[in-house]
Amino acid sequence: MSDVLGPGPKTRVRRLAEKANYERDVIYAVIDEAPLCHVAAIVKDAATVIPTLHARENDTIYLHGSPSNVVMKAVVASGEACVAFTLYDGLRLARSGFESSIAYRSVVLFGAASLVSDDAEKARILDLFVDAVLPGRASEVRAMSDAERRLTMVVAVAIVEASAKLSSGPTDDPDEDTQLAVWSGTVPARITFGAPIPDANGAMADRTIPLPASVKRLLDRQ
Amino acid sequence: MSDVLGPGPKTRVRRLAEKANYERDVIYAVIDEAPLCHVAAIVKDAATVIPTLHARENDTIYLHGSPSNVVMKAVVASGEACVAFTLYDGLRLARSGFESSIAYRSVVLFGAASLVSDDAEKARILDLFVDAVLPGRASEVRAMSDAERRLTMVVAVAIVEASAKLSSGPTDDPDEDTQLAVWSGTVPARITFGAPIPDANGAMADRTIPLPASVKRLLDRQ
Repeated sequence: MSDVLGPGPKTRVRRLAEKANYERDVIYAVIDEAPLCHVAAIVKDAATVIPTLHARENDTIYLHGSPSNVVMKAVVASGEACVAFTLYDGLRLARSGFESSIAYRSVVLFGAASLVSDDAEKARILDLFVDAVLPGRASEVRAMSDAERRLTMVVAVAIVEASAKLSSGPTDDPDEDTQLAVWSGTVPARITFGAPIPDANGAMADRTIPLPASVKRLLDRQ
Repeated sequence: MSDVLGPGPKTRVRRLAEKANYERDVIYAVIDEAPLCHVAAIVKDAATVIPTLHARENDTIYLHGSPSNVVMKAVVASGEACVAFTLYDGLRLARSGFESSIAYRSVVLFGAASLVSDDAEKARILDLFVDAVLPGRASEVRAMSDAERRLTMVVAVAIVEASAKLSSGPTDDPDEDTQLAVWSGTVPARITFGAPIPDANGAMADRTIPLPASVKRLLDRQ
């Protein structure tokens, strides 16, 4: 396979094409860093979008949900999915409103969707979701029950084409605006995690259970 | 009008209905805090979702984009829009993978979409976008030119129905799991802003221009 995932007929970036990127590594870095994604489907003739969690393995994005989830059912029925991943990186404040925007990294992908029905494969993939929310967490929790697995629909989206759009750095003021006495610059933003709050609902009183390695790593990394 | 925006035929929350909320104030608080949104449309028979900025005024959400934006054009042509707003609030780590998830606040709305073509109204709304990205910024930048206004498509989405889904607090472990020696709890997350980086592309050297009030307020508030 090539090292790019686009542009394809659905993913060519037209506006601000200088921000476009179609490289697999760049696209996967955005997908993997995004804590959630948005998936679109046609439900009763209407375009519908919902937020959901995701896990990536090679060139496949996994989505999951309740078997009654109308968007997931529509994705499976159509065999197609469009999924967006967006990271908010702060403000890009130009000297005009027109050139002002946010800093961001985003990916939009189109893929071939199918239901994952094999029990062992479903169980394996559901662990990927736990680790996607917090790396290393799957090995810390109790194993999934058969009943829980039956209550969860897993959908595989094999990527067909994808594009990234990356916006950062200095603003794009036209030359004439750089003479204006207006402050211009960027204000970086990132997600930060606060102190963990142990649940008080355990018979064992969670405060006596040490913080798990997965959470320690998350907090050490920031 | 009532104080709720749903549930309607498209927005009744089925799964985890105890997290659903249809109150106008709750829904608008999520929309106003979200730094960006995701809008879906049907483009060449395929459900398509893109991230974009938004501004809210009363019961109308404004979107904007290049006049060549295929999703915005499809929204206008169909007269309908589905828009999602999602805030990531951290981790909810249960003792099982099944009950583990993220903390979040999300809104999905459906609305009647129309193009805003009046020049004065467009200019007024485009200032709303500048202030939505950073409150108070519109009064600090130079005024928009007629050419810039013509290069921007503005779409009004009058909300027809909407729902919020709010997930926070302790995890929902079933009673039998609370006996397990597995750490359980939440790890709060929020967006934090770093030190502003003045652009170095100005003839006036931005470092001599004081930080504007809008940025100061943003940093003071966190």
